Amino acid sequence: MREENCIFCKIANGEIPSATVYEDDGFRVILDMGPASKGHALILPKSHFKDICAADAQTAAGLLPLAAKIGSAMKAGLGASGFNVVQNNGTSAGQTVFHLHVHVIPRYDGGPKIVAWEPGKAEPDELARTAAKISAVL
Amino acid sequence: MREENCIFCKIANGEIPSATVYEDDGFRVILDMGPASKGHALILPKSHFKDICAADAQTAAGLLPLAAKIGSAMKAGLGASGFNVVQNNGTSAGQTVFHLHVHVIPRYDGGPKIVAWEPGKAEPDELARTAAKISAVL
Repeated sequence: MREENCIFCKIANGEIPSATVYEDDGFRVILDMGPASKGHALILPKSHFKDICAADAQTAAGLLPLAAKIGSAMKAGLGASGFNVVQNNGTSAGQTVFHLHVHVIPRYDGGPKIVAWEPGKAEPDELARTAAKISAVL
Repeated sequence: MREENCIFCKIANGEIPSATVYEDDGFRVILDMGPASKGHALILPKSHFKDICAADAQTAAGLLPLAAKIGSAMKAGLGASGFNVVQNNGTSAGQTVFHLHVHVIPRYDGGPKIVAWEPGKAEPDELARTAAKISAVL
């Protein structure tokens, strides 16, 4: 399952060279060319899915265990003290390449905030109403 | 596998009430009380693991498929047009509660940037050296 003109299909399947960290039958892990921090990696499924909602069960289940493996290696190999796992779905979420991918961003003591937000406020009644709207369609 | 004095163990197992969106044998999904956007949810495993590296295989494999299910329901139930999945490991990555959890943050057209970073620059040689340091310890 490949898509014509998808750059991540070409990278994942080795048609375009990349700084590859890891590869198996289902995935290729490469370094991002515009890294948020040193060692910022992308996990690319070799099959094409536009986002996590479109992924098959095996791919969806495999991504986070692989992110853990890569994150642990960032600690051992690069001296990172932590890592963020980020996966964006849709233009409004900042997705720019519409081939499912997972960012693994190593973090170092004393480094800048990268993935952070200002916590909003929500009243318990409002939370309960919002939760009901989501659970109603699950 | 519970840990004394862990607030997420207590919430996940229903000892502390929460705005619950979904629950099964392994996980509880609640709404964050300091939401980055309306409907911001947290997936909490019922068992205690400090982060994704410590999780058992079943838990690690189950998180992203569940995030996809919750994100799809945010689109259908709240009118979100996308969502971010964020999972932080370690103090330097912004983790503040040391019970593994996954943020699912719904996004709306015209909303603010929440999960974003300035892309850095890296030369191909530098990327290759960094990739080798990670893959050497995989």
